[in-house]
Amino acid sequence: MPPLAAISSPPCSSSTSLAVRTLPSSSPTLRRVSIIRPTPKPASILRLPSSAPKMRSSTVRCAVIEKENPETERPDTFLRDSDGQNGSVSSSSSVRVRFEKMIRDAQDSVCEAIERADGGGKFKEDVWSRPGGGGGISRVLQDGAVWEKAGVNVSVVYGLMPPEAYRAAKAAASDQKPGPIPFFAAGISSVLHPKNPFAPTLHFNYRYFETDAPKDSPGAPRQWWFGGGTDLTPAYIFEEDVKHFHLVQKNACDKSDPSFYPRFKKWCDDYFYIKHRGERRGLGGIFFDDLNDYDQEMLLSFATECANSVVPAYIPIIEKRKDMPFTEQHKAWQQLRRGRYVEFNLVYDRGTTFGLKTGGRIESILVSLPLTARWEYDHKPEEGSEEWKLLDACINPKDWI
Amino acid sequence: MPPLAAISSPPCSSSTSLAVRTLPSSSPTLRRVSIIRPTPKPASILRLPSSAPKMRSSTVRCAVIEKENPETERPDTFLRDSDGQNGSVSSSSSVRVRFEKMIRDAQDSVCEAIERADGGGKFKEDVWSRPGGGGGISRVLQDGAVWEKAGVNVSVVYGLMPPEAYRAAKAAASDQKPGPIPFFAAGISSVLHPKNPFAPTLHFNYRYFETDAPKDSPGAPRQWWFGGGTDLTPAYIFEEDVKHFHLVQKNACDKSDPSFYPRFKKWCDDYFYIKHRGERRGLGGIFFDDLNDYDQEMLLSFATECANSVVPAYIPIIEKRKDMPFTEQHKAWQQLRRGRYVEFNLVYDRGTTFGLKTGGRIESILVSLPLTARWEYDHKPEEGSEEWKLLDACINPKDWI
Repeated sequence: MPPLAAISSPPCSSSTSLAVRTLPSSSPTLRRVSIIRPTPKPASILRLPSSAPKMRSSTVRCAVIEKENPETERPDTFLRDSDGQNGSVSSSSSVRVRFEKMIRDAQDSVCEAIERADGGGKFKEDVWSRPGGGGGISRVLQDGAVWEKAGVNVSVVYGLMPPEAYRAAKAAASDQKPGPIPFFAAGISSVLHPKNPFAPTLHFNYRYFETDAPKDSPGAPRQWWFGGGTDLTPAYIFEEDVKHFHLVQKNACDKSDPSFYPRFKKWCDDYFYIKHRGERRGLGGIFFDDLNDYDQEMLLSFATECANSVVPAYIPIIEKRKDMPFTEQHKAWQQLRRGRYVEFNLVYDRGTTFGLKTGGRIESILVSLPLTARWEYDHKPEEGSEEWKLLDACINPKDWI
Repeated sequence: MPPLAAISSPPCSSSTSLAVRTLPSSSPTLRRVSIIRPTPKPASILRLPSSAPKMRSSTVRCAVIEKENPETERPDTFLRDSDGQNGSVSSSSSVRVRFEKMIRDAQDSVCEAIERADGGGKFKEDVWSRPGGGGGISRVLQDGAVWEKAGVNVSVVYGLMPPEAYRAAKAAASDQKPGPIPFFAAGISSVLHPKNPFAPTLHFNYRYFETDAPKDSPGAPRQWWFGGGTDLTPAYIFEEDVKHFHLVQKNACDKSDPSFYPRFKKWCDDYFYIKHRGERRGLGGIFFDDLNDYDQEMLLSFATECANSVVPAYIPIIEKRKDMPFTEQHKAWQQLRRGRYVEFNLVYDRGTTFGLKTGGRIESILVSLPLTARWEYDHKPEEGSEEWKLLDACINPKDWI
C-alpha cells in the first residue's frame, strides 16, 4: 500500500461527468498555521480510498483534489476547524481527531525507533497542505547506517467522490442522481528497506475513511471504514524472525477479535500476490480493507494497537540481523527480491498504480520503492538453497505460528 | 514496447464471453521441427496486438492462446504450413513469410553486431513453440563487457481476438454477433542496456498483424497493420550522438515517405511519456502503430529499412562511449534514469502491463527491464548540470536534426 498521499483515483475519462472538485474549506483562515494563497486551484485528480468497499471497486470513480503546497512548519492538525480539533483530544473527540492524533504519534514513535536503531541516518521531513484543508508529513531516511531507504508518511485528505462510488447513495431510490459525496481520509504509510540482505523490509499502512451524507440524498447515512496492515518482506528466512513477527500481529489482532488474525493473515497473502510471477511479494502479515461491520471504537483501538505493534514486531529482528556478514551473492538475491517489490508496487498495488496516474504527491507515493533493485533474465535459485526456500514460501504461503 | 512474446491482452473477467481459445493447427505434424505433444492445453490469456487500431484500444478485449513449450532446436519457421512457408522466400511469398524472415534476419544481424561490439558476452538463446503454431526465440546477453543486459526477441503468434476488437466485424450490420476473429502477429523486440553511463540504452520493436475474415461475417475484409519504432535513452546528452541517431531514423523514413519522420518522431515523444513524472523516458526516435493506410509492400519495405537501420544508428555511438571514464555520480544518475525506464515499462507500456497480467512468456517480457535500477527520494539535479540538461530534454522534447 502506498503512502496516504496516494489516496487518489483511477483516471477519469475526460468526457466523464464524474470528475468533481474539492470544495474549498469554509474557514481556511482559522487554521492554526495560516495558509494564505491565491484562489485555490483544484489541480490533481485523486483516487478514491483503496479501501473503499468491494462493491465499489469495479465502479469507474474519480475525484479531483487540490494541488498540494509545501509548508515550512508542521501544523498542529491538518483537520478543518469544523472537525473540532480545537481543545484537548479526549475519548469524546471525533474519530477523525483521534485517528489523526494516533497516526501522527505513530509516525513520531516509529521514526524515533528507526533513527535509534540506525544509529546514523536522520529523517528528512517534508510538510505539505491543501488550501481547502488536509495535508501531510513525509519523512524519509535515505542511505543510513542500517536502512538504505525508510519512508514514514502521514496524510489527511478532504475530497469529493462521485455518487457511483458511494454505497448508501446507490441504495437511495430517487429519479434524481445524487451529487458528489464529500469524503475524509487519513492514514499512515511506511516502507522500510534495510541494507543488510538478512534484515527484512517492512511495510505498514493504517487508514480511516468517512463520507458525509450526500447533499441530494439527505436520508442516506454517513459511511466510515478502516483499512491497513503490516507485512514483512525478507530476502532470507529466519524462522524465529518470521514467527516473532506474525506472533506480534496475532497478539495485536487477538486483543480485538480472535477471528481477525487468521482472516487478515490470509487477506494479506492474497493481496500481495504478484500474479505474473505466481508468487507473493514477501512472507505476509496482516491486511484488511473496508472494515466497518464492527464497533467503530473497537476498530479504532484495533488500528491503534496494530500501529503501536510495528516497533516491537520489527526492531528486534533488525537488531539481530543488521550487522550479519554477507556475501555479494546474498546482496544480489536481496536486489532481485527488491525487483519483485517494484513489480508488485508498480503493477498491482492499487494505491500506487492509480495514485501515479492521477496526480498524488509522486515523491511520497514512490518512496515505497527501494533505493536499488535488480532484474536478471530467467533467474532460478538452486533447489533446496536458502534463496529457493524463500521463493517457495512466497509461492506457497505458510502458517508461521 | 515489449518483446513480442508480450502480444497478449487485457485481463478478461472470467465471466466474460470474450475469452476464446486458439485453434490447434490443422497440420502440426508437417512442421519441419516436429513437435509431438499431448493434447494442446490452451493455458494463458493473451493480450491483443498493442498496435491494434486506436478505435479498438478502449474496447475490453482478450484472447486465449496456448501455453508455450521450450524447444531444443530453432525451427526454420514458426509459421503454420498453411501459411506457405515451404519453398524459397521470393517477393511473391506472403507478407507473413517475408516478415518472419525479415525479423529473424534482423535478430541474427543485431545479435552479431552486439556480440562483436561487446567483445566478451555471448547471447543465451531460448526457443519455444506453441502446439498450434507460432513460437519464438529469445536471446539475452547478460553481464557482458559493454552491455549489462541486452535482449533481442522474435515471436510469431496465432490467436483469436474477440469480435469487439475487430473494426470490420463491428461495421458489418447483423443481428447475430460475429464469432472470434483469428489473428496472426509476428515481431522483433529488443532492449539493450549498456554498463557505461555515457552509452545510451536502445529499444526497437517492429511487428506485423493480420486478421482473417471472421467466420460469421464472411463479407468482412481481412485486416493487416504494421507497428514499431526505435528509440534512444541516454543518461547524458552528447548532441552529436542524438543527432546521428535521429538522422539515421529520418533517412530510413524518408526512403518510404518524407512525412514519416516528423510524424513518427512526435508519436514517439508522445508514447514514451511518463505521465506521473511529466517527462519522457528518453530522447525519442520514431514510433508508429496501426499503420495500414499505405501500400502494404511499401510498409513492409519501410519496416525492413527501420530494422536494418538499428545497427548503423546505434553501434557507432556505443563504440565512442563504451570506454569513457566515469564517476560514481555518473553511474548513480544512470541508475536513476534506469528507474524511470522501469516505471515507464511497468506502469505505461501497453504491451508490458497487459502482457504481465495475462500470461505471456514473463521472462521474455521482462527482459526489457535493466539489470539494476535506483530510486532516490525527491532527487533534483542541479540546474544547468549535465543531469539537468538530460532531464530538461526529457521534459521538453527537442528537434535534433
